[in-house]
Amino acid sequence: MIKPKKALNMILKKANPLGTELVELPNTLGRVLAENIYSDVNLPPFDRSAMDGFAVNSKDGSKTFLIVEDIPAGKVPKKSIKIGQCSRIMTGAMLPKGADQVIMVEHTLQITSNKIQVTNKSQKSNVSKRGEDVKKGQLILKKGTKLRPQEAAMLATVGKTLVRVTRKPKVVVLSTGSELVEPSKKPGSGKIRNSNSSMLLVQLKKRDIDAKYLGIARDNFAVTKKLIKKGLAQADILLLSGGVSVGDYDFVREVLKSCGVKIHFNKIAIKPGKPTVFGTKGKKLIFGLPGNPVSVLVIFELFVVPAIDQMVGRKTKEKLVPMKLLKDFQRRDSKREQYFPVKIMMSGNRDVQSQVSSALPLEFHGSAHMQALTQADGVMLIKRGIKKLKEGTIINVRSI
Amino acid sequence: MIKPKKALNMILKKANPLGTELVELPNTLGRVLAENIYSDVNLPPFDRSAMDGFAVNSKDGSKTFLIVEDIPAGKVPKKSIKIGQCSRIMTGAMLPKGADQVIMVEHTLQITSNKIQVTNKSQKSNVSKRGEDVKKGQLILKKGTKLRPQEAAMLATVGKTLVRVTRKPKVVVLSTGSELVEPSKKPGSGKIRNSNSSMLLVQLKKRDIDAKYLGIARDNFAVTKKLIKKGLAQADILLLSGGVSVGDYDFVREVLKSCGVKIHFNKIAIKPGKPTVFGTKGKKLIFGLPGNPVSVLVIFELFVVPAIDQMVGRKTKEKLVPMKLLKDFQRRDSKREQYFPVKIMMSGNRDVQSQVSSALPLEFHGSAHMQALTQADGVMLIKRGIKKLKEGTIINVRSI
Repeated sequence: MIKPKKALNMILKKANPLGTELVELPNTLGRVLAENIYSDVNLPPFDRSAMDGFAVNSKDGSKTFLIVEDIPAGKVPKKSIKIGQCSRIMTGAMLPKGADQVIMVEHTLQITSNKIQVTNKSQKSNVSKRGEDVKKGQLILKKGTKLRPQEAAMLATVGKTLVRVTRKPKVVVLSTGSELVEPSKKPGSGKIRNSNSSMLLVQLKKRDIDAKYLGIARDNFAVTKKLIKKGLAQADILLLSGGVSVGDYDFVREVLKSCGVKIHFNKIAIKPGKPTVFGTKGKKLIFGLPGNPVSVLVIFELFVVPAIDQMVGRKTKEKLVPMKLLKDFQRRDSKREQYFPVKIMMSGNRDVQSQVSSALPLEFHGSAHMQALTQADGVMLIKRGIKKLKEGTIINVRSI
Repeated sequence: MIKPKKALNMILKKANPLGTELVELPNTLGRVLAENIYSDVNLPPFDRSAMDGFAVNSKDGSKTFLIVEDIPAGKVPKKSIKIGQCSRIMTGAMLPKGADQVIMVEHTLQITSNKIQVTNKSQKSNVSKRGEDVKKGQLILKKGTKLRPQEAAMLATVGKTLVRVTRKPKVVVLSTGSELVEPSKKPGSGKIRNSNSSMLLVQLKKRDIDAKYLGIARDNFAVTKKLIKKGLAQADILLLSGGVSVGDYDFVREVLKSCGVKIHFNKIAIKPGKPTVFGTKGKKLIFGLPGNPVSVLVIFELFVVPAIDQMVGRKTKEKLVPMKLLKDFQRRDSKREQYFPVKIMMSGNRDVQSQVSSALPLEFHGSAHMQALTQADGVMLIKRGIKKLKEGTIINVRSI
């Protein structure tokens, strides 16, 4: 039985990058850039009007200007501006030659079809200079950047419609256990519906990973081995659930070994989720998750997500938030660190010095009691060795 | 020019639910449940062993028990337990008749093929009673629940593989402006690539909405009208960008009116994003966003996201987080509330009483300067009337 921190380090040591792939621009959300991006244009690409107004030469002291041209955005000006002249110009349009200032409509006294009269001409140029935001050839996005909407805008601006990003792992999900039937079936006597696989598919989707579901392997060595082999052939990460505790029928570990999987650990000092197996075959990661859904949910968040993040080159965010415990908590067994479901009560106080939320431990019957998790917003961490926590104690809570 | 709060209220008054649709279980993430879900089973469905061990009658004081049956998970036991008898039972398996307790393997002194000898038999039953988590017929998920992985597990458990959820809006994105070329093209003189549409598609994807992109309408009444009509025919929400400021060529508003769109406002007292038009046609919402990408990003987050959330029945989370300003800030014009890009410096201090992050205002040239937003983690809010903010002031920051 190894400690959670050691288990995570062991997993992370085996979670390696998977190379790169090209994706289309609208599909870049959350992906990690695998190349440096340089701009092929100046931004702005030309001296550009920041206003609707009249383009003039800033040194021209005239009070009246003759309008020589209309310049909407997207048009290349034909006329240069001489003393006493101006061009009507729109926001975003190219400044004509000879002009270096735009007079706002608000600073004109009179506008006729071919002339303007200026009041208090301000010093402000109202011009965005060519290249003032980005110079042609400049590095604008570094390899390793996690892509958000603003990065998509920059990629579009420099013409990157196909973007090289790190490859996401292919994940295969497989449940084991003769007591399981598919969710679409009515369970007979002694049976329950398989909920772990649906949940894992949704947990994976939350990380933008479409996984493949291989079905339920009943507790039979040959059947289980066949499905695990099939999974291993397709997956970078194989997620099994069930069949990993100490019972005689829990032979998933044996099947894994017979498939050439090297087992790195088979128990973690954590609650829920103790009977968690981790193995590798070449670069492939194999997680034998417990059978109970609460354990699956927690172990996936704590151990599988960081592996996925490291494979794609994302940082896993620190997710423990300090909160105030709303009522006394105690437990009998303190040998393992434990995650216990809580309801988060937001601090109504908008004062910065006291913006700590509170957490209320929920009624919880154990790792099969998934209904409790639908009432929960988080799980609180109780460290190893701690049996009692007093109301008001500051605890660490992880959102779920 | 209306105030941001009033603008948002006006939008929310028009953002109505769109009815419901059925989705498959693995696609329920983030969707809002449109029906109450009741359980068609007891959970556990039978008195169930919570351990691998030996099922006995708790009143039986014997020290040695004859093993009468093996009960793996999923099997219906055939034998009842009499005095001096037990069945070998696996975690999750059904308790046999006559048994109400499971002795853990750890509490046996000796196990042979047909007999066990018990040491200190604990009081603990190690049995999960039928229906103790959920009773058959019980309401387990309420209409309006936002679906997460744990809810997917419960839906699977009760056999709900097709789930009725609120319908998401159909969104159509259209850019206007003769200065724009598609991102795949090299812009000629006076032109720039269209970055707003790519960014909006990614912003929508962040909210799990696949939108349709209709292209670029050049500044021509007939062309623009044709595309807007096409968009209105398909969309619940039509997102236009560009063509909404005061210039002569900004006729999007006029085109909208000619398409029967009722304009509710055409300017918001906000920076960036003042020239934002909002209109409706029947139940359809039309946003005429500004042309500059920083404005589009901000206005989408502040005004379009809450509309989408309300249409699908989700709560928009309060996203302003108090942070400490890292350097003096000033601005010339305080007539509008402003959102200004900042870099967030996480508080290294894990002490609860002082876990306030800091925010550093970035170099920012205005609403065309999207490159600045790729350096930013958030935008800080500067309220109307405020010209100066001293280093150390507590400001509100919105993550972007």
